[in-house]
Amino acid sequence: MEKKIPYKIYLNEDEIPKQWYNVRADMKNKPAPLLNPATHTPMTFEDLRPVFCDELVKQELDDNTAYFDIPEEIYSFYKMYRPSPLVRAYCLEEKLQTPAKIYYKFEGNNTSGSHKLNSAIAQAYYAKKQGLKGVTTETGAGQWGTALSMACSYFDLDCKVFMVKVSYEQKPFRREVMRTYGASVTPSPSDTTKVGRKILEKYPGTTGSLGCAISEAVEVATENEGYRYVLGSVLNQVLLHQSVIGLEAKAALDKYNITPDIIIGCAGGGSNLGGLISPFMGEKLRGEKNYDIVAVEPASCPSFTRGKYAYDFCDTGMVCPLAKMYTLGSGFIPSANHAGGLRFHGMSSTLSQLYHDGLMRAISVEQTSVFAAAQQFARVEGILPAPESSHAICAAIDEALKCKETGEEKTILFGLTGTGYFDMMAYQKFNDGVMTDYIPTDEELEKSFAELPKVD
Amino acid sequence: MEKKIPYKIYLNEDEIPKQWYNVRADMKNKPAPLLNPATHTPMTFEDLRPVFCDELVKQELDDNTAYFDIPEEIYSFYKMYRPSPLVRAYCLEEKLQTPAKIYYKFEGNNTSGSHKLNSAIAQAYYAKKQGLKGVTTETGAGQWGTALSMACSYFDLDCKVFMVKVSYEQKPFRREVMRTYGASVTPSPSDTTKVGRKILEKYPGTTGSLGCAISEAVEVATENEGYRYVLGSVLNQVLLHQSVIGLEAKAALDKYNITPDIIIGCAGGGSNLGGLISPFMGEKLRGEKNYDIVAVEPASCPSFTRGKYAYDFCDTGMVCPLAKMYTLGSGFIPSANHAGGLRFHGMSSTLSQLYHDGLMRAISVEQTSVFAAAQQFARVEGILPAPESSHAICAAIDEALKCKETGEEKTILFGLTGTGYFDMMAYQKFNDGVMTDYIPTDEELEKSFAELPKVD
Repeated sequence: MEKKIPYKIYLNEDEIPKQWYNVRADMKNKPAPLLNPATHTPMTFEDLRPVFCDELVKQELDDNTAYFDIPEEIYSFYKMYRPSPLVRAYCLEEKLQTPAKIYYKFEGNNTSGSHKLNSAIAQAYYAKKQGLKGVTTETGAGQWGTALSMACSYFDLDCKVFMVKVSYEQKPFRREVMRTYGASVTPSPSDTTKVGRKILEKYPGTTGSLGCAISEAVEVATENEGYRYVLGSVLNQVLLHQSVIGLEAKAALDKYNITPDIIIGCAGGGSNLGGLISPFMGEKLRGEKNYDIVAVEPASCPSFTRGKYAYDFCDTGMVCPLAKMYTLGSGFIPSANHAGGLRFHGMSSTLSQLYHDGLMRAISVEQTSVFAAAQQFARVEGILPAPESSHAICAAIDEALKCKETGEEKTILFGLTGTGYFDMMAYQKFNDGVMTDYIPTDEELEKSFAELPKVD
Repeated sequence: MEKKIPYKIYLNEDEIPKQWYNVRADMKNKPAPLLNPATHTPMTFEDLRPVFCDELVKQELDDNTAYFDIPEEIYSFYKMYRPSPLVRAYCLEEKLQTPAKIYYKFEGNNTSGSHKLNSAIAQAYYAKKQGLKGVTTETGAGQWGTALSMACSYFDLDCKVFMVKVSYEQKPFRREVMRTYGASVTPSPSDTTKVGRKILEKYPGTTGSLGCAISEAVEVATENEGYRYVLGSVLNQVLLHQSVIGLEAKAALDKYNITPDIIIGCAGGGSNLGGLISPFMGEKLRGEKNYDIVAVEPASCPSFTRGKYAYDFCDTGMVCPLAKMYTLGSGFIPSANHAGGLRFHGMSSTLSQLYHDGLMRAISVEQTSVFAAAQQFARVEGILPAPESSHAICAAIDEALKCKETGEEKTILFGLTGTGYFDMMAYQKFNDGVMTDYIPTDEELEKSFAELPKVD
């Protein structure tokens, strides 16, 4: 009964990175700027400050500064749950009988249950520092809303969350967590905003999308004094804060002279993927190292693998700036049988540019395969993974099985972004054998692409 | 905006205790032995081994060995999530404006979400070592069942869980977690066992109790070859394994020369309380130190504060040995509005003896106060606590507020046993203001006491 156990690489508390890394600084081809939706000119600091906190706008627009100091208050908060574990998945390797070495960076061991807290606490901090009353946001699967509610509660800020209706219904308990932390939660689209009412009129009976919820949250932020809007993914500022994941992972690997061959992250708007890969991508951009970097997205919401690289609205209500990105069109709404997060119609501009430049590849996976991987992982590694994270698990298992065929001893690093405690309705469907897959048809996508804005 | 942050006392991995501590070794008045329900003679090794694993029976019956080595396989597993954090609750202290210093030992940062894993992995290990096919058990709130499912999955053992019906209904997602780990879950009482059918006949429409579920699990274990029964609380063996909580807490406090004045644990069957207080109680028993040790139980299931100290059945079906303990009677079933765990009708024999000898005190709290404390704690400390753990939070806050009145700078240590992610239905009731309390009447208890077995 000798058993290998998952084994953690420990960093000391003083090895938590003291600065965030901005991958844009090392990109020769910078991501295309956000455009004003009316004039199609690049958004300036003054354009963005009614929507976002000042300090965050600066971070958003700065393509050149490579490192930003992590403010002391945020660093202190990080110490509550960081360094996060980097785990060698011995049990999974043994189960797969693969010569590959599998590592995962586990971001679910904080009380909000996901990596989202890394940016939530930063954004709440800057809002508090600016003397704001509160913030508004959207949430899909609920991880971002949970993290933000917790961060706002910590800094005593009001927090108004618009939650994608389908998630609100599939995950009633997520709402209660946010309420317990003192946030208000509204299912989106709602009739509490102008844009929500407009969307409900155009798409009656819609199950909602992140794009809708963003429009509503932005409206409430800009029409209430002392409020700003905050976002858990897509934006450059979020990738900046999330770089702490990759920096820590790299520090731990470096400490033991381990170099990954493949780096795998799940991709929705890009918060985890961008954060995990940042320092590795930096080395690749500077020509110091080569890595096989893989984005994994749901086949039901395939922005990288089937989207267009074009300027598009970040929201359904078309009130937000235009971003150049891989997009399915701002009217795209994932099929209601899609269980997890990763449901944004677009993708981070920075990651889109890197993908466009051939610096990473992308694959899509169907959700029944994702849950099969999640179950296999849970049974051997003990952690009940979030469906989002399980996209990365699924791809990591596939790569490890390829190594089994070829005999290669590749080192695989993947991001395990969070836990699945609030996803048990989806797990139940999988356990009962009634989970289904959905892949949008070409016709659906063409219809959605037809509504892309015309930008020169 | 200067903020103090919760601060963790770190132990190194090699400071995880290498032995469990058996508090019975230091007790002058040993706990009364388990009795054969038919003959009223003390249960022997041979009597118990059809029910429990051999090694666990030895631990159960050994009142004299002070320390047991933790087997290497269990120690390796512990390293996956231990040392668990000992946190100074600065934010809570600040919120309460108390001069008291509050520390909590947080056992929810493992993937099963509670302290139950400490004993589950030990019991699964001994079952595997004995070459068994599987184990059976009961679960109330679901924490034990979750931990055991995970432990069995790790050792590739079959796991059959009987889950108290009211919890099964209030917490459908708990069942799915257990199923995801590969366990089978049956609501109890069920018609799948003789004793279950008997109970259903006697108490039609019952919402179940731990006592019922234990009877069913024991029947299945003893009637299927290669199976044994395992239990997550009450027993001496469980307190032994859980002593790792107290030993670690004490090691961390000692490292920084901190001596607690008050030690507070929530109490159902006694697994967490017994584990947390063990080494401190040892010092008290040996006359080395004095501590104010406090058990906190639900007012709806008040075995310490309103129970009788008498021999009673551990289960409703009266198939188990008799234990001398503070008990509400084996037929006692907590009101259905009782949301959390801590629903066992009796209490660990060891803790009962210690309480009887005046070495600790006990209080009971109503659930609306418990959830108010839970919410307050979550908002400042960031952790969403389990209702069970929140009994201890509630008492710790009360003690801290007393210090505020008197100006005393007492040091309070309490056990935060787990997270409340699967208790959101109860949180929702609290958030909506519709949660109610229930205190059993004297008549109800008298009726239940009337069925206590007559033992000389």
